[in-house]
Parts: sequence; structure tokens; C-alpha cells
Amino acid sequence: MTVASVVGATGYTGAVLTDILSQHPGVELGALTSISHAGKTVADVFPRLRVQGRYVAYSREAIRGSDVAFVCYPHAQSHEVVSELVDSGCRVIDLSADFRLKDPAAYSLWYGFEHPRPDLVAEAVFGLPEAYRDKIAQARLVANPGCFPTGMLLGLIPFVDRIDPSGVIVDSKSGVTGAGRTPSEKTHFCAVQDNFKSYSEVGHRHTSEMLQELSLAAGSDLPVAFTPHLLPVDRGILSTIYFRPRGEIGTSDAWLSACAECYSAEPFVEVVDAVPSLHEVQGTNFCRLSVRVDSASGLVKVFTVIDNLVKGASGQAVQNMNIMFGLDEDAGLRRKV
Amino acid sequence: MTVASVVGATGYTGAVLTDILSQHPGVELGALTSISHAGKTVADVFPRLRVQGRYVAYSREAIRGSDVAFVCYPHAQSHEVVSELVDSGCRVIDLSADFRLKDPAAYSLWYGFEHPRPDLVAEAVFGLPEAYRDKIAQARLVANPGCFPTGMLLGLIPFVDRIDPSGVIVDSKSGVTGAGRTPSEKTHFCAVQDNFKSYSEVGHRHTSEMLQELSLAAGSDLPVAFTPHLLPVDRGILSTIYFRPRGEIGTSDAWLSACAECYSAEPFVEVVDAVPSLHEVQGTNFCRLSVRVDSASGLVKVFTVIDNLVKGASGQAVQNMNIMFGLDEDAGLRRKV
Amino acid sequence: MTVASVVGATGYTGAVLTDILSQHPGVELGALTSISHAGKTVADVFPRLRVQGRYVAYSREAIRGSDVAFVCYPHAQSHEVVSELVDSGCRVIDLSADFRLKDPAAYSLWYGFEHPRPDLVAEAVFGLPEAYRDKIAQARLVANPGCFPTGMLLGLIPFVDRIDPSGVIVDSKSGVTGAGRTPSEKTHFCAVQDNFKSYSEVGHRHTSEMLQELSLAAGSDLPVAFTPHLLPVDRGILSTIYFRPRGEIGTSDAWLSACAECYSAEPFVEVVDAVPSLHEVQGTNFCRLSVRVDSASGLVKVFTVIDNLVKGASGQAVQNMNIMFGLDEDAGLRRKV
Amino acid sequence: MTVASVVGATGYTGAVLTDILSQHPGVELGALTSISHAGKTVADVFPRLRVQGRYVAYSREAIRGSDVAFVCYPHAQSHEVVSELVDSGCRVIDLSADFRLKDPAAYSLWYGFEHPRPDLVAEAVFGLPEAYRDKIAQARLVANPGCFPTGMLLGLIPFVDRIDPSGVIVDSKSGVTGAGRTPSEKTHFCAVQDNFKSYSEVGHRHTSEMLQELSLAAGSDLPVAFTPHLLPVDRGILSTIYFRPRGEIGTSDAWLSACAECYSAEPFVEVVDAVPSLHEVQGTNFCRLSVRVDSASGLVKVFTVIDNLVKGASGQAVQNMNIMFGLDEDAGLRRKV
Repeated sequence: MTVASVVGATGYTGAVLTDILSQHPGVELGALTSISHAGKTVADVFPRLRVQGRYVAYSREAIRGSDVAFVCYPHAQSHEVVSELVDSGCRVIDLSADFRLKDPAAYSLWYGFEHPRPDLVAEAVFGLPEAYRDKIAQARLVANPGCFPTGMLLGLIPFVDRIDPSGVIVDSKSGVTGAGRTPSEKTHFCAVQDNFKSYSEVGHRHTSEMLQELSLAAGSDLPVAFTPHLLPVDRGILSTIYFRPRGEIGTSDAWLSACAECYSAEPFVEVVDAVPSLHEVQGTNFCRLSVRVDSASGLVKVFTVIDNLVKGASGQAVQNMNIMFGLDEDAGLRRKV
Repeated sequence: MTVASVVGATGYTGAVLTDILSQHPGVELGALTSISHAGKTVADVFPRLRVQGRYVAYSREAIRGSDVAFVCYPHAQSHEVVSELVDSGCRVIDLSADFRLKDPAAYSLWYGFEHPRPDLVAEAVFGLPEAYRDKIAQARLVANPGCFPTGMLLGLIPFVDRIDPSGVIVDSKSGVTGAGRTPSEKTHFCAVQDNFKSYSEVGHRHTSEMLQELSLAAGSDLPVAFTPHLLPVDRGILSTIYFRPRGEIGTSDAWLSACAECYSAEPFVEVVDAVPSLHEVQGTNFCRLSVRVDSASGLVKVFTVIDNLVKGASGQAVQNMNIMFGLDEDAGLRRKV
Repeated sequence: MTVASVVGATGYTGAVLTDILSQHPGVELGALTSISHAGKTVADVFPRLRVQGRYVAYSREAIRGSDVAFVCYPHAQSHEVVSELVDSGCRVIDLSADFRLKDPAAYSLWYGFEHPRPDLVAEAVFGLPEAYRDKIAQARLVANPGCFPTGMLLGLIPFVDRIDPSGVIVDSKSGVTGAGRTPSEKTHFCAVQDNFKSYSEVGHRHTSEMLQELSLAAGSDLPVAFTPHLLPVDRGILSTIYFRPRGEIGTSDAWLSACAECYSAEPFVEVVDAVPSLHEVQGTNFCRLSVRVDSASGLVKVFTVIDNLVKGASGQAVQNMNIMFGLDEDAGLRRKV
Repeated sequence: MTVASVVGATGYTGAVLTDILSQHPGVELGALTSISHAGKTVADVFPRLRVQGRYVAYSREAIRGSDVAFVCYPHAQSHEVVSELVDSGCRVIDLSADFRLKDPAAYSLWYGFEHPRPDLVAEAVFGLPEAYRDKIAQARLVANPGCFPTGMLLGLIPFVDRIDPSGVIVDSKSGVTGAGRTPSEKTHFCAVQDNFKSYSEVGHRHTSEMLQELSLAAGSDLPVAFTPHLLPVDRGILSTIYFRPRGEIGTSDAWLSACAECYSAEPFVEVVDAVPSLHEVQGTNFCRLSVRVDSASGLVKVFTVIDNLVKGASGQAVQNMNIMFGLDEDAGLRRKV
């Protein structure tokens, strides 16, 4: 059994990890740490989880004996504990952005802190199994992708050679869990319900991941115009992606076939003809996507949906763990969470 | 007092018209017609409206004495009664699409029917006051714009000279009232709530209006890639519009200033710095909009919000009536509906 | 013109007051005070209000010149400023609970503070126009009723002589604005949406008002079992009220007629045959109610709906002001807010 | 393996059954029948289910070879096919009301049809495992309880000896799936969202089951005043139940302990201290409940929550199947659906 701990277990991603890991056939649950709720039971904090256990304060000692730790701290606060754990020999899957960017200088630019561990930045593997499965299998440190980049990259990876250099437009709509569990004016029920709005209209931090990974996949820089919006929905991201194709635009069917072929061996990517809705992936680790050719305007439209807490965070993290420890890739991920 | 009747008064747009007209200081409510609910009172059908009155079956006779009739029939079913009313000397504001397109042949292409009255098609004025106020004042027949074209056009009219010939992308998100009041699988609460999806991903009929009016405003054809989505929201449309500018991209402030200047005399268009949300316009006849420059990708992003039933339909129709009859342009439109 | 100020204007009730008063034909808006937002404009804090003005810090000076002040502070924090204003000659409508209870000792029991002004407690008039219109007209200090008591009392006042001494059960369901604008775990969108729960299942503070006013109306004590619940809804309270009648139970029609007669002269109480929904009163100052006899169980069921922010708070406060200053009782209250 | 078929598989309860049975370790999925969707695949009709299979028209032949059939037809339409299947030797779990009432005459009164098979009415076992586990094990025909009665009975069974003869009040709030999948004006998103209302305020059909089973459990008749309400929620029922206790009212803790003891061996009833919310049971077969004593009014309040489609319908049906076929009682019911 793989012993797995969760550091920062009382946010939304921590709760979903706790749920998945507690039912995972190949996992023994290690420590669940929490700064704010140490001492409380899981049932106290999340009555809807039916998991035995009690949160403890984080300490290196608390994680000793764990084969892998999932770290669910906020950006810029995660790298310290991640580094400590990796140095001590524990494999780590970091759900923050602290090791996603390859260029150490990018952290100052996008996240406002000087990265103290360029060595681990260089070593960390970007945890998108569809792109880096082999590297993930060997990794000591996996940087679990952001939720928006996951949906966007899965929609574009099959087509990177077909995208015109003018780049892509990513219009994304996210559920409120994407904003985290800490109460704020913006996540108050009365501010969200029956409402809809954009946010971070220019320069959202996830753009950095999108640019990096899209350019790596394409072999050259591709501009990305990214606009996130907040849906009155609990979980899920739908991204509507636009690009001008190189060469003939062809038919929707041709693009769908190419896409389906690209993902034929992937356990968690489903290419479908009918454009998918959030309902189809909520609670699951699936990304569903479809493609439409808009001949009149000469643009291709790709539609992808994921659950931001599962394929966009905790589910993908478990998928990465499964790959790292040689478990079935979908172990623990077949039921809804 | 202007006597105003509503033909097809028991759909959503009819209900909002009934509400506005019943409180309009310059209007006397004429007939409210309904095929399905003739004989019932307004309170029977819409308990939340506090309007005295009873629906009658449509007849030419029922409308006699009206100065203006609002026709709220579905596309392809409206032109017959509209033609009859105009021929009889009643001024008409048609909320369907039956007279919006200038090219009579376009009705076969986009709406699947041969238009029997090219003369009235030629005469009808597209009822966007911000573009055609003077013509509306004189019109016998006003074709009230579609909800999506209204939001999109108000966002782009100030900039038509600055849009690159590659065209525009319009990613729109609409509340469920946009789908009408007739129950269907798609509008069932359980299909919509906590969900989000696109529809008519290519070739939505409103694209035809967008193309026509954008080209008329710009003086040349501009491609439009339009994608509507369905929000778990009652009322409102937010459109996120992308285009590449001709020449230097400049600053967001410069675009905002240009936009504010363009609309400085408009009673129902508000240019704001903070990108608006649906809450800010629901129940009102306002269009609010903002602009952002995304220098990294070289694109301009315009955000517009309207209430699809008010500025996107019934409120704009009353605004048109006010212009046609020399009333204050915002008469009846200062309170929430 | 009556000069009206709002003390504590940036909560939900303050925002609705600002909206109503700014359009009230007989009112000149005085100061809008705010501890947290002093210096900001109304548009900064509430983009959906179209009201000119800027919040100021509270001071006695800021309110000088006002004929009336609405005080929207939390319970136990309101009485100090209310007392200061009344002493200085300004008439006050207090939206908190600080002067609702007649027995000074009750404040320790239900609200945990020793009331420093038993003289004003004795003088304050409970601001339910349907019960105390004449006293309100003369009052220096009106204690505006709680939202739950308003709905409950309007449902029972017509029947106090017919209620069996075993008392009444009040099962109430409230929208989230009832919990206030301050963000908390309980009002996070993800905690509320697609959810439903009770709270304060025994001894909710509004029970004290219900007991007091029901007993005053009935002339003897009547037990009240009150259970509030939280709806995934913005605004509105529906109360389902059960009691055993004295004597013959009779018919629903008989109860409806008695109720309609009781309220025939009331501008804001509507007795209807079809049991009302929240939609019918949201945004309005109306209370709608209906009655059903359940012969098999021998109980009467009364259903009342109000908008908790309007008839349950700010609208009723303006209704009280209208009465106090001899204005039309529905002035400023005819449009939706 | 137990071969299980679903008759009427394209409503909400059919969909949940299909989901559970397709993953049930002891079940082989037989036929899925549908009148309206015969010939389509499961994925066509329910894209969010990941179940292979195709709907067929119902025929006796289609069910041949099945050990058990779940019948999901509407009330009054179910008994014919149920009778045919039982007569042919197939064990049946009927999700309609057609065999729930013991008195054949009751069907005319409550459901408006003369029951043609009093013999099967007499034989059918009411499928509430917590009350009739032993009889269910032997049954040829199980009448699966209604959703409201399930939540109400689980809340009162522990206390039947303590309820005063004046009876009980059951104030229930249900999600919209309870109204079925057929579109109607009442289930239109725009009629439900941000709304709340009661329905069938007197004489809802489920009252008959409540009366029957409560009286059987108590050994004497107990009046039931039942009022259902419609929540803007997908799934779940919360019932707030009031009764006057015989003798001393005692403490909440004493009632909770008695309740917990009563259900200590039950796999799907959870007695909890904190009053539960719908979120805690949605997607599961659990009923959670809590109790509060309201000493001031002398009443006991019981709160129960279930998922109306799982413990209130399809999950309980599978629990019954498990009992009938000697499978683990929670087989197939440990994951969310």
C-alpha cells in the first residue's frame, strides 16, 4: 500500500483528495494536516465526507512514513514545505503553482516572489499525464497543473501543428470552487447567484502556464488571450477556444477524428460529437471535448469541460500518484467524488 | 396618451411589455392578445404582475384604436400579423426577426421561409436607437433587434473603424429566459441548474443580424464568429468580444475614453471602468460596457452586459415607441421590471 | 421635503433604503454613513445602484438637519446611536432589534446585553403599520420589526381569536440576504447552492418578538414553535404556519374571506386564493398570504410570503416614515427595488 | 450474478437505477426499456452516464431471464406490467405507488383508479428495510416507498410510542427531480430558480402512505398534517417534523440517544448531533436525522434529510433487491450516484 498524506487538507482540493484517497484500493491514508482545523475530525469540518480521521498540525514528523505527500497550500506559500519534503526523501505532488513554471525568473513576474529553489524548479515535472506520463513516473516532484491550463491544453495539444501563429483565444467559465473555500465578498451567495462576470480580464496568472506549455508543445511561441469568468455553479470549467488554422479549415468531423485518434489511449479524455456540458464531467476525472469548424469566419472552435477540483486539481493529482507508484492509472478515480 | 397593444402577450417579452406599458406615464394600455390564454386575467397567468386586465384572442378588431402594436410572435409566424397591422395604418414594433434582415433572400437562408413582403422588408427600420434614432422616429414598422446583436453591436459600434479585417469573435452567455417560456427538456430546472453549455455553436441565426449591421456600420464586410452559451441564470447576456485592432493597440483608458465619448448623449448606454456583471443591468434598459487591451496577445476585449428581456427586447421596444411618438426616450423605463 | 439619512448604509438593508429613498418623491436624501466604506461613492460599493453620493463617517454632525434617520446597525450596537439621535430631536427608525421588546429585561435574555435606556424602550413603537399605524404616526422612535415576525404576524393577526391555546408552529424559509452581507462560511456560494438546512432550531431571537406581539394581539400568551431554514435564494421569506382552531374548523374559503376583510384597507397586504410563491413579492413591499384548512388533521395552514429586505426591513421602514410624516403610505414603494 | 432489468428506464429514477446497477458487483444488467427512447443508447439520452447499452421497447420477452425487474412507471400505469411480471415468476420492485397501500379501496380515493389486483395488493411488501427487512427478503413483490414517506417514517419510527394522539406535522421541502423529468411550466428553470413555494397543500397523495405506516407502527391512528414545498435544488428532501410528546419532554440528548440506539444496526440511517443539510446526503443512500426539544412550546422537532432519487427511490430499491437476493445490503450503494 502506498502511504499518502495531504498537507493543507481542509480546503476544497484537500477535501476531494481526502475523499478519493480514503477509498483508493492501493492507498493507506497517512496524515491530514491543517493549520486552522488541527484537532478536529474530518466529519466536523466536512459532514458530507464519511471519512474517519482527525486533522493534525503540519510537521515534518507528521509526514514521516508517507511515500507521497500532496501539498495544497496557496501559491507562494507552498514551495517551502514542498522543498523540505522532497529533500527528506518524500515524493511530492504540489497542487500550487510554485513549481509549474520552468523559468525561475517567471515567479517574480507572475507570482511576486523570488524562487529560492531553482534546482527543484528545474527538476519538477509538469503533471499533465497526457503530455508527460513517462517523466511523471520517475518524478520526485510533480507540479500539478492549474485548472484552466488543464482544460485548455487538453483541447489544443492535438492541434498544435495546425494553429496559425496569430495564436489562440481561450474564453473560460469556471465554477465558484475555483476561488477557494475562504469566504469573501466575491464568493458570497448573493454576489454570485443569478449573476455572471469576468475577472482578471488581462494577465491572469494561469496565462503563464498556458504560454509555456503551448509553446513547448508547438515548438514555437503562440500568443494566448485568456479571459476567465465566474459561473453561478459549484464545480466545473468550460473553455471555448478559438484559433485560425494553418491551411485548409476542412470539416468538423476531420478535426474530431484527429482529436479522437490523438487521445485513443487516454483513460480520462473523451472526444465526443455533441458539445459537452459541465454536468457530464462534474465529480469525475474526465475531460470531455468537441470541435466545430466555423467556415464563415475561418475559425476553429474547441470546447472542453472538466471538473476543476478533479481533473483540474485533486483527481489529476491522484492520477499522477498512480503513475508515479505503478498503480492502475484510474485506481480510485472510477467513482464520483 | 398613446394607445399601445401587445400581440402575443403571454410569453416573457409580452409579460415585460405589459409591466412597462401598464406603468408608462404616456401610454394607455390597449389590447393584450394571447392564443393560449385568451379569457384569463393577467393575474392568472403572471401572479407577480399587478396589472388589471384580461387577455383576448387576436383579431384585427381587437387592435383597432391602437396607435402602436408590439408583436411578440415567434420568427416566421410574425410577419403575417405585422403586415396586416401596418397595412391597416397601425404603427408596429415587431420583436421577432421577420423584418430585421435587409436582404429578402436572407430569410430563406437563415429562417427557412420565403418572405412574402419584400416591400415592408425594405421599409422596416432596424430598431437600435443608438444607430438609427432618426429613422425610427419616422418609421411605420420597426424591427426590434435580437438580444445577442444588441449587446454585440453596442460594444462594437464605437470601434468599427478600428477593427482589423480578420473580424470579430463574440462569445456570449445568456440567461434562460432567452430560450422562451415554452417548457422543454433544455429549460428544465434540473438540466440547467449547476450546469453550463454552448448551443448553436456555428451559424446561430443572430449571426445574420450581426454581420449585416456590423458591415453597414463599418462600410465593409467583417467576419463574425459567434458562440452563444446558456447560463444557469434567469435574465441577462454578457458578451465577451475579441478583435485585433488596426494600428497601434494603445491603452485600455484610450479605448474607454473613445467609447464614453461616442455614447455621451445616450440615455441607456453606460461605459464603466470596472468590467460589469449581469447584476448591474438586470431589470433595467441599460447596456453597460467596458474595454480592456491585452497587449501580450495584441487583442482588444470588449465586455457588454444587457438584460435580454429589457434592452435586448421589450425595453428597447418601448424606447423605440418613445422615439416614434415623441415621448421622453426613457419614459416608462426608469424603474426596474 | 423630508430629509432622511441612513446610518450604516452599506449593508443590504442600507442599500435597499438608499435605493428607495433616492427615488422617493417626498424625500431629500441626507447623509449616508458607513464605518467601513466612508469616502467611497455609492457606485463604488453598489455598482447596480444608480445613485449619486458618497458615504461619510457617522457623526452627530453628519445627521444634523435630518428629519429622520434610519439606523441599520447590528443588534446591541444600535441603541447607542439611536438614543443619541432621539435625544437630539431627530426622529428615528431603528432596523435593529434594540427597541422591539417591551420588557427591558428581555434584552439580557435574548440579546445578551443590559439595556441602558428603559425609558426609550418604553416609548418606542413597534413598527408594524397593520397593528400600530396611529402610534407610528406620532412616534419619535420606531422599532422596525424583524423579518420573520413580520411575515408571521401578518399571517396570524386576523385569527388571534381563533387560535387554540396549544399555540402555533411557524416553519420559515428565508433567502440568504437575511444573513447579512458580511462574508462567512455559511453564506459562501458553495455552501448554499443546491443545499437547504435549518438553523437556530430552538430559541431563534425572533421568537421573542413573535411571542410578545402575538400575545398582545391575542390578549393572552400563545406558545410559538419557530424554525428558520436557509434557502438557496437571494431574497424572500415563506412561512408555513400551523395552528389548531378553537371551535369548528370550517372551510378554507371562510378563513380566506375573514382574512381578506381584515386587510381590505391595507395597501401592502394581499390575500390571495392560490398559495403564493416568493417570486410574487420579491422586490416589493407586499405581503401575500393564503389559508388552507386541513380537515383530516384538524389544523389550519397559513402561508405568507414577503421580501425580507423590503416588507421585512427597508420597505416597511419607509412605510413607517411615510406614516410618521404624513406622506402617502405607498410613496416611494410602488416600484421594484 | 443477479440479472436485473429496468422497466421505464429513461426517467430520473430509471437513470439512477441504471447507474447503480451498472456498477453493482453482484448484478448483471438485463434490459433497459423505454417507450419514448427505444433504440437510443444510454449515452444518447444521459450523456453523463458512462454506461454501455441501448433502450428497448418493453415486452414480456425483453424481461425474460431477469431475476428481478424494477418498474419505474407512473402511478396507475404501473400495476399492469407489475402484475404481468409477477405472474410470470419475475420478482418485482415497483417504484410507483400502485402496491403501497394495504386497503384496495384506498386506490380509488387517493389515486383515482380501481385496483384490479387486490390479491397482489395483499401480498406486496412495503419496501422500507428498516421496518420490514424480513418480509422483504421473502417477497415476490416489493412496493418501494414514496420519497416523502421514507424521510418522514425514518424520523418517526423510533418515537411512535412517544407521540401524543394529536398527531404530527410534516413540513417537507423537496428538490425538483421529485417532480419528474417531463418538462412543464412548473419545472421550467425560470419558474423555480430564486423561488420557493408550497404545492398540494392539503391531501398530497403521500399522506396516505404516511398515515398507513405510522398507524401500523404506532398501533393506533395518528393524524398527519403534511405540506410539501418545492426547493430550487436538484435533489434532496428535508423534512421538519413536529409533535407533542406524551409525558415529560426531556432533553434533546435523550431523544438523540434513543434514536441512535434504535438505528444502531442500520447501514443507511445516521443519527447526528448537528442538524443535517441536503449536501450531506445528496448522491447517497443515507438518511441523516437529528432531534431537538423545544421546551418553551412543548414540542419535539425531528429533522431528516434524504436524496429523493436514492434513499427516496432507486437506492432504496437496490437495497431491497440486495435483501431479496441475499447480497450485502450496501452492495452497489457505497459510491455516489
